[in-house]
Amino acid sequence: MARSPFYNAHHSPVGAFATLTLGATGARGGFGLELGAPANENLYIGFERDAEPGVIDALPFYDRAEADTSNFDSEFQHRHRENEWRFEAVSTAQRDLTAQVDSWQFGDMTVRIYTPAWELSDPPEEHQVLPAVYIDLTLDNMLGERERKWVFGFSNSHRAAGMRTYRDHELNGVMRGRDLMISTDDPEAWSAVCFDPRDAIEPEHRENLNSMLGELGVLVGRVGPQEARRVRIVVGFYREGIATSGIETRYHYLRHFKSLEEVTLSGFDHFERAVEACVEPPNDLTPDQAWMRAMAIRSYYGSTQLLETTDDPKARKLFWNVNEGEYRMMNTLDLTVDQAFYELRKNAWTTRNVLDLFAERYGYWDDVQVGEHRESGGISFAHDMGVMNQFSDPGRSSYERAGLTGCFSYMSYEELTNWVLSAAIVGISQPNWLFKHANLLRDALTSLQFRDAEHPEDRKGFMRRDGARCKGGAEITTYDSLDASLGQARANAYLAGKAFGTFLALRECFRVLGNEDLATQADAEAARTAAALEEYGTSGRIPALLGEPSDSWIIPVIEGLAYPLHLGLKNELETCFGGLLSLMKRHFDTVLQPGICKFADGGWKLSSTSDNSWLSKIYLCQWVARELWNTADPQADSAHVEWLLRDGYWCWSDQIVAGRVQGSKYYPRGVTSELWLTRSSQSE
Amino acid sequence: MARSPFYNAHHSPVGAFATLTLGATGARGGFGLELGAPANENLYIGFERDAEPGVIDALPFYDRAEADTSNFDSEFQHRHRENEWRFEAVSTAQRDLTAQVDSWQFGDMTVRIYTPAWELSDPPEEHQVLPAVYIDLTLDNMLGERERKWVFGFSNSHRAAGMRTYRDHELNGVMRGRDLMISTDDPEAWSAVCFDPRDAIEPEHRENLNSMLGELGVLVGRVGPQEARRVRIVVGFYREGIATSGIETRYHYLRHFKSLEEVTLSGFDHFERAVEACVEPPNDLTPDQAWMRAMAIRSYYGSTQLLETTDDPKARKLFWNVNEGEYRMMNTLDLTVDQAFYELRKNAWTTRNVLDLFAERYGYWDDVQVGEHRESGGISFAHDMGVMNQFSDPGRSSYERAGLTGCFSYMSYEELTNWVLSAAIVGISQPNWLFKHANLLRDALTSLQFRDAEHPEDRKGFMRRDGARCKGGAEITTYDSLDASLGQARANAYLAGKAFGTFLALRECFRVLGNEDLATQADAEAARTAAALEEYGTSGRIPALLGEPSDSWIIPVIEGLAYPLHLGLKNELETCFGGLLSLMKRHFDTVLQPGICKFADGGWKLSSTSDNSWLSKIYLCQWVARELWNTADPQADSAHVEWLLRDGYWCWSDQIVAGRVQGSKYYPRGVTSELWLTRSSQSE
Repeated sequence: MARSPFYNAHHSPVGAFATLTLGATGARGGFGLELGAPANENLYIGFERDAEPGVIDALPFYDRAEADTSNFDSEFQHRHRENEWRFEAVSTAQRDLTAQVDSWQFGDMTVRIYTPAWELSDPPEEHQVLPAVYIDLTLDNMLGERERKWVFGFSNSHRAAGMRTYRDHELNGVMRGRDLMISTDDPEAWSAVCFDPRDAIEPEHRENLNSMLGELGVLVGRVGPQEARRVRIVVGFYREGIATSGIETRYHYLRHFKSLEEVTLSGFDHFERAVEACVEPPNDLTPDQAWMRAMAIRSYYGSTQLLETTDDPKARKLFWNVNEGEYRMMNTLDLTVDQAFYELRKNAWTTRNVLDLFAERYGYWDDVQVGEHRESGGISFAHDMGVMNQFSDPGRSSYERAGLTGCFSYMSYEELTNWVLSAAIVGISQPNWLFKHANLLRDALTSLQFRDAEHPEDRKGFMRRDGARCKGGAEITTYDSLDASLGQARANAYLAGKAFGTFLALRECFRVLGNEDLATQADAEAARTAAALEEYGTSGRIPALLGEPSDSWIIPVIEGLAYPLHLGLKNELETCFGGLLSLMKRHFDTVLQPGICKFADGGWKLSSTSDNSWLSKIYLCQWVARELWNTADPQADSAHVEWLLRDGYWCWSDQIVAGRVQGSKYYPRGVTSELWLTRSSQSE
Repeated sequence: MARSPFYNAHHSPVGAFATLTLGATGARGGFGLELGAPANENLYIGFERDAEPGVIDALPFYDRAEADTSNFDSEFQHRHRENEWRFEAVSTAQRDLTAQVDSWQFGDMTVRIYTPAWELSDPPEEHQVLPAVYIDLTLDNMLGERERKWVFGFSNSHRAAGMRTYRDHELNGVMRGRDLMISTDDPEAWSAVCFDPRDAIEPEHRENLNSMLGELGVLVGRVGPQEARRVRIVVGFYREGIATSGIETRYHYLRHFKSLEEVTLSGFDHFERAVEACVEPPNDLTPDQAWMRAMAIRSYYGSTQLLETTDDPKARKLFWNVNEGEYRMMNTLDLTVDQAFYELRKNAWTTRNVLDLFAERYGYWDDVQVGEHRESGGISFAHDMGVMNQFSDPGRSSYERAGLTGCFSYMSYEELTNWVLSAAIVGISQPNWLFKHANLLRDALTSLQFRDAEHPEDRKGFMRRDGARCKGGAEITTYDSLDASLGQARANAYLAGKAFGTFLALRECFRVLGNEDLATQADAEAARTAAALEEYGTSGRIPALLGEPSDSWIIPVIEGLAYPLHLGLKNELETCFGGLLSLMKRHFDTVLQPGICKFADGGWKLSSTSDNSWLSKIYLCQWVARELWNTADPQADSAHVEWLLRDGYWCWSDQIVAGRVQGSKYYPRGVTSELWLTRSSQSE
């Protein structure tokens, strides 16, 4: 079955929170800076037809290709000269999308967009944080008899910033305000600001190209007869000044680039290096898996933001921030943990950087509520660090609220596991870093214990007491929009699985730190959790809620096994937790069935009682199942691809309700798919 | 006939290019920074009903007053608690609008918005450029038995910037990114960021007010039983960093205020002073005139921007910029001249500042085209200085293009008259300033002459040769969207009238400069123009085009008389140009008739052959007619008010096509109405 190539994907530099989104038909892509959604700009990318001069075959990324000047010239619109040029949107194209290259072929024309996913050194080098996207247009006109034009343009959606043409001895470009420039170093190209893309192509008077009215910025050039030409285009982004409040920071790349022009010039300097960096080593993913991984990595980088403090120019502290897609919460900790698998393979220091700021500013101590009174709880972490460039107050997230039992309630227990698990993933090989947080790790164990029960003899190894910040409400999990089967934290089997992983992760950390005492305690907690899961799973299936009424069955009860697997403990799991593992397998085999945890199309349904299924978590559970039981489910992969393509607007998205993108759109979390390239045995 | 109070008006600080626009029903107003249109935000301004607790009587400036969290919580929206509060949009209110105070009364509740139109000293003092709007809410609950709540809030339309609550020992507020803050110093108020305005009113848990999700920022407070309370609210705007390109500038107020918080604090310091400054002296305008003048002044300040250069912090140069409403062109010179009458009464240095930059950077020399060849022309000025915070290149406007005969063509001749006329208006009393431009004034006279004819004996005193920049096209006038009757520059009677005024203005300038030679030359040119107008007006009416085919009759042939009148030359006009004046009167009386230059509703129709009539120019011609012939036309004033109210969205707008706002929306030019307060005899 041929899939349409016309779906949106991010094309983003690393850490610039900037994107060229394109692929969907109509004005539904464009250049976005710090946005939680596509900019919805027209894009004009095309070449003059060989057989029909004056006709531009263009990718169908626009709503209109004619001028609208009616507010300037209300009575006499018709008096503008008829334009002999015509845009024709192509209806078919060959698209080949990897994580770093998006190639479009239509007729004899090729457009390639390069977004190298640089590995960041600490601190990064200039080219790694260059806020630019690299594009080339190639046209093989070797057999052509006539010169043919090419066009690359966009409509400006910025409410306040106008546009101007840019020219120096080598470049032609269009600048939008002080934050965006498209430009080419093709020596025969020109650029224009105009109302009508066709006006830029063959201006009667060249000086009119410098007019500044009109919402379009356009580059135009030519390819001669009997010529094959490659045109290089750099898209430069630039966000100057202080970008955030709460903590005042700016983009780190400002250290390297003093202006948008410098970004652009540097983009051409690094162009070929960037193209080379986009060649990826082969892997054994299926095409569906490879495509989802590529889409996920793109949406991840589209949300990343590398900042630095501005209070002391001599001591700028770096902050890595992953914005939460359409919601734009900053460094949401329940995403950090899922994304840590990816970052470990790229630049684990960014995750350690995030965890440091959580430790320094976003931890808090809280009691637990027991009926009407409070008892000791312990440390936890805020859900996030703020939203939309606003750092929240210390110890507070932008998201959590008191008095609720569903969406927007506290995630104290789960965020505590998330900090620990992330720390284990990116810290276990860095004893010095881990040592810095030794007390915190100890306090985390204590807090997990007290959030279970006060007295050791009452503990069952999972969350049983809600934090006092809930003020009578109840904690939730990251699955905030689902029913209790996955949404309720207390007694939740998913969270129990994660607790199991957390205790083992803590044990490994304590061993690295040489604290056998605490390691033994953590080990004992893991055994408690395993025992509890087995106790509630005597029927062969583990109910969604342990010891509370529930008719739900969930896949993510196995999710927590990802951590010991990833930490190289597969053998230990099999030898020491064989009972739990066979229960998990039985549970998994039983629930992964149509009518329970499978949709009719074969896609995975995380909870039997909810239609809201999250792809990032499906990927994670798929990996656990593959590593433990050698499963593969190409039919499900195909269904998951269809879910994303059915939408086609929001790039990679997470929350899919019965096959339709519904929430967590434009989202970074899908990089859990990176696990598909990881073998648990590798880490042993 | 009772007019609806629900129409948009600007509420703007001086020179901040910022506005609180409100008045139209629905989410069609809000906080705009550097915008060419309303921000389309919901505004929630109301008080709890006395008779019905829990019901908020609110001004109808919103589309919805309930939460929408469906993208967060797709399946379970319904599980959020039912809110006992309810917003009811009031359907009637008493509105009293002056240039500086907008008062709303509904029930026992009053809302007043103060925007002092400070006279700017050079350089301005802190309070004059404070980018703040002052609001008070008063509720007389002296006879009330119960406490009542008040609410002031808005929905954030900024695509990239989130919101946070702000608290210090005296203030409660909400900040949007780094550019907007609403706050109150009411000691019992609180503030919130939320999805639903009702959630802010009576939170079950106070800490939830600090949540940062939701697009609403809301202030809430209470008025006790048997209490009358006045609540003060400051809206602070702040645009930091470099604001413009081409020339790099920042907002001048950054010199005084280091942050948005400082703006807000200073706003409360200056609050009562601002309120007092809004009391206006009485005048003898009719209510219709007073209302139009108030609307015009508001739209003017909503477009103003006081900038300063950033290249040398020790020598910051001030730039005054008036943005062109919806088009946002910068310092459009054909507006500058119309607005100079207003600025002369406020702070004439700002107009001199604009003229200086035109002289320094935006003048150019050009030939005239005569058939296929070129002859000497002379100096002129670009139409504008750029658009949307982008200064254009030296000698170039953002607007003008070659090869056209209509909209977007060059306005060389008219802009030349505009610079001279503006200079006379604001410079004649400043000989030192005028002296700086003595050469330019001389060159202007020469250029006007050569744009008429090469040899003195061929000259007729008006424009007869198009500039070479037109490249075969034809120059236009400021009436760019009209037919040739007002749109064509060459041979145009409107422009001839303006040339007449320009020659007299030049003569006055040369006299001030002590150059009798040039004064005599200029005087002779004025006589030529007068003679030509009389020559073509032997029928008693002056055709729109002098010596070219035309079936049009236009009112603005009298427009140019405004300048000698304003320069105090009324007596001279009557004694030395009696023939011209009686022709003008006969023309005026003849054309200002239904079917010619009057619409059916009594409104003025500037050209008999166009339905596109411009209010700013109508005001100007009204003044000329009143000063010369003692006319008044209240029926027309009433029609003009109706034109603006029929729209009700775009505040004051200029281009009205058959009674409907069509172009030049949200426009600064209406301050020509200030002439209504000027007696030409006063300036004698």
